[in-house]
Amino acid sequence: MATQAEVEHSRKVFGWAARDTSGLLSPFNFSRRETGEKDVALKVLYCGVCHTDLSMITSKWGSSIYPLVPGHEIVGVVTEVGSKVEKFKVGDKVGVGYLVDSCRSCQNCDDNLENYCPNFITTSGAKYNDGTTSYGGFSDSMVVEEHFVISIPDGIPLDAAAPLLCAGITVYSPLKYYGLDKPGLNIGVVGLGGLGHMAVKFAKALGAYVTVISTSPNKKKEAIEHLGADSFLISRDQDQIQAATGTLDGIIDTVSAIHPLLPLIGLLKSHGKLVMVGIPEKPLELPIFPLLGGRKTIGGSLVGGVKETQEMLDFAAKHNVKPDIEVITMDYVNTAMERLLKADVKYRFVIDIGNTLKPTS
Amino acid sequence: MATQAEVEHSRKVFGWAARDTSGLLSPFNFSRRETGEKDVALKVLYCGVCHTDLSMITSKWGSSIYPLVPGHEIVGVVTEVGSKVEKFKVGDKVGVGYLVDSCRSCQNCDDNLENYCPNFITTSGAKYNDGTTSYGGFSDSMVVEEHFVISIPDGIPLDAAAPLLCAGITVYSPLKYYGLDKPGLNIGVVGLGGLGHMAVKFAKALGAYVTVISTSPNKKKEAIEHLGADSFLISRDQDQIQAATGTLDGIIDTVSAIHPLLPLIGLLKSHGKLVMVGIPEKPLELPIFPLLGGRKTIGGSLVGGVKETQEMLDFAAKHNVKPDIEVITMDYVNTAMERLLKADVKYRFVIDIGNTLKPTS
Repeated sequence: MATQAEVEHSRKVFGWAARDTSGLLSPFNFSRRETGEKDVALKVLYCGVCHTDLSMITSKWGSSIYPLVPGHEIVGVVTEVGSKVEKFKVGDKVGVGYLVDSCRSCQNCDDNLENYCPNFITTSGAKYNDGTTSYGGFSDSMVVEEHFVISIPDGIPLDAAAPLLCAGITVYSPLKYYGLDKPGLNIGVVGLGGLGHMAVKFAKALGAYVTVISTSPNKKKEAIEHLGADSFLISRDQDQIQAATGTLDGIIDTVSAIHPLLPLIGLLKSHGKLVMVGIPEKPLELPIFPLLGGRKTIGGSLVGGVKETQEMLDFAAKHNVKPDIEVITMDYVNTAMERLLKADVKYRFVIDIGNTLKPTS
Repeated sequence: MATQAEVEHSRKVFGWAARDTSGLLSPFNFSRRETGEKDVALKVLYCGVCHTDLSMITSKWGSSIYPLVPGHEIVGVVTEVGSKVEKFKVGDKVGVGYLVDSCRSCQNCDDNLENYCPNFITTSGAKYNDGTTSYGGFSDSMVVEEHFVISIPDGIPLDAAAPLLCAGITVYSPLKYYGLDKPGLNIGVVGLGGLGHMAVKFAKALGAYVTVISTSPNKKKEAIEHLGADSFLISRDQDQIQAATGTLDGIIDTVSAIHPLLPLIGLLKSHGKLVMVGIPEKPLELPIFPLLGGRKTIGGSLVGGVKETQEMLDFAAKHNVKPDIEVITMDYVNTAMERLLKADVKYRFVIDIGNTLKPTS
């Protein structure tokens, strides 16, 4: 039996929510606003399962509000548009990523960097300006301001498009911003999960020579033969790391566990860039002299702006960049979360919302 | 009585050297090579005293070779030039900084970034390719390959020019490389010693609004009234730091002591850059999420290339940027080192080599 949230809006929506820090997901009836004049309403078809969803449902960062409907890698079809919507029409294939709103008036918003707006509103588990809760894509419909809706280009299967909206843009954006998008560069990718495998694919599509750096020797065959990486380093093998000293122009580090930065800094050429996209819970140790000696930098990057997300999808369509996914049914989601915690997925779960989310109340 | 080093060359030179990790400096007779066809010989007039000299004479990094003649902020007058020297003539006012040679064939050397050449040879305490030792500017003469000799522009007093050759370029180079040289930017400077006071002056000359960040409240008056900073923050005052959150485009961090990075990262705007030029002996704690949230970067920078050092001196002459110096005699140097260890100098000792270095043997 699905529990009922306080009805705040008239549009009835059905989804799955976590109710407490156990993170267990179960059916949930709630509501969304009617389609405003600048809003796009969509029927959700697919939704990816991101590690952030796992963190949110278990309140890993201590800030989650329940009931919590996860999901921010959302693909669907437009069912209604507001009177002032210009870019979309009923029937369009669209996506919604990590954000559903921002202040629209700060410098970052002006620069199409809504993802760095200090007042952005995430797709799941945040508060809209009217005080109501944002519920994510583990649900049958969404209502989102046109500006935050992405067009899904032809050529990308809808299920595979979903993870591009978070995992894809999370690694594409830093490759562009940090100048790691030039053909012929040597790019390292640390960690081979949802983010890492997309980083390998985008870097390859951008023309890089790609080295995967992993703690798991048994990922070598997969990385090279299946994902198309050019080289593989075992991060704990000091001889391998030593031999590759000073060979990389940049590294995308997708690892959220505590790990040493010194070997990674050592792998960089002079002026090389180590970009963190994972979120270790505790500070890492940063040795300073190795940064000075080669004028190296360590930077962060957090998803991407709406405009760049569209650019990324168009690039992915053109270059046939697609995530490796395992499509699951809605009622498999709790098992999927357990497997995700163990990194037992190649490489992203995508829930077939359209065909398997069945109202139970 | 000055001790005599093994005579390897015919040019007799007199200077002061440390003999062991006590770091105590005393008179020292040694030799330098004859003026080669691409070499410039100079009579040393002034030499700055850098914190690195203090680290080298006491073998703080464990790698010093004795006898060690410190000094890499060297200003003098040309006394002889080799047959193939093109840029200098006898009587020219010249400088020598942190480097006296590099491989001249790697990518960094090709890019005028000799300071990042993996085989650069430092002015003091290194080995030339012929196996002989490099002795620094606490001595009456130098012989240096033309490429590594800087022209001192008219308009900079020779004594004040000396610290520009290391302290000056160390802060000027990252202001340029990290894009922190645009008028109107908000630039922070952490620490107010030899490097920090030059960072304030260069940032001001480049048109920045400059905020000094210091542990010492009693430096506020000095920073603002004397050095021309616009604002002052006490780094341990959480209210002050909190109120300044997100206000700085970049920070030059000159502190070599262990210190927290989180408050500094918090002071940066989105896409802001924290540049380390001090060398803490142990790793610092790096919190990752604050880097991601605003796409911030932490970078390093180490002195500068020859071409940029010349550009920096020309800029300093044009904009009247000069270090604050205390000119000392050669025989005061051990006292100066003790005072430098206590940061008891405003802001750089410069030894009057030309007038006070007297042969004792």
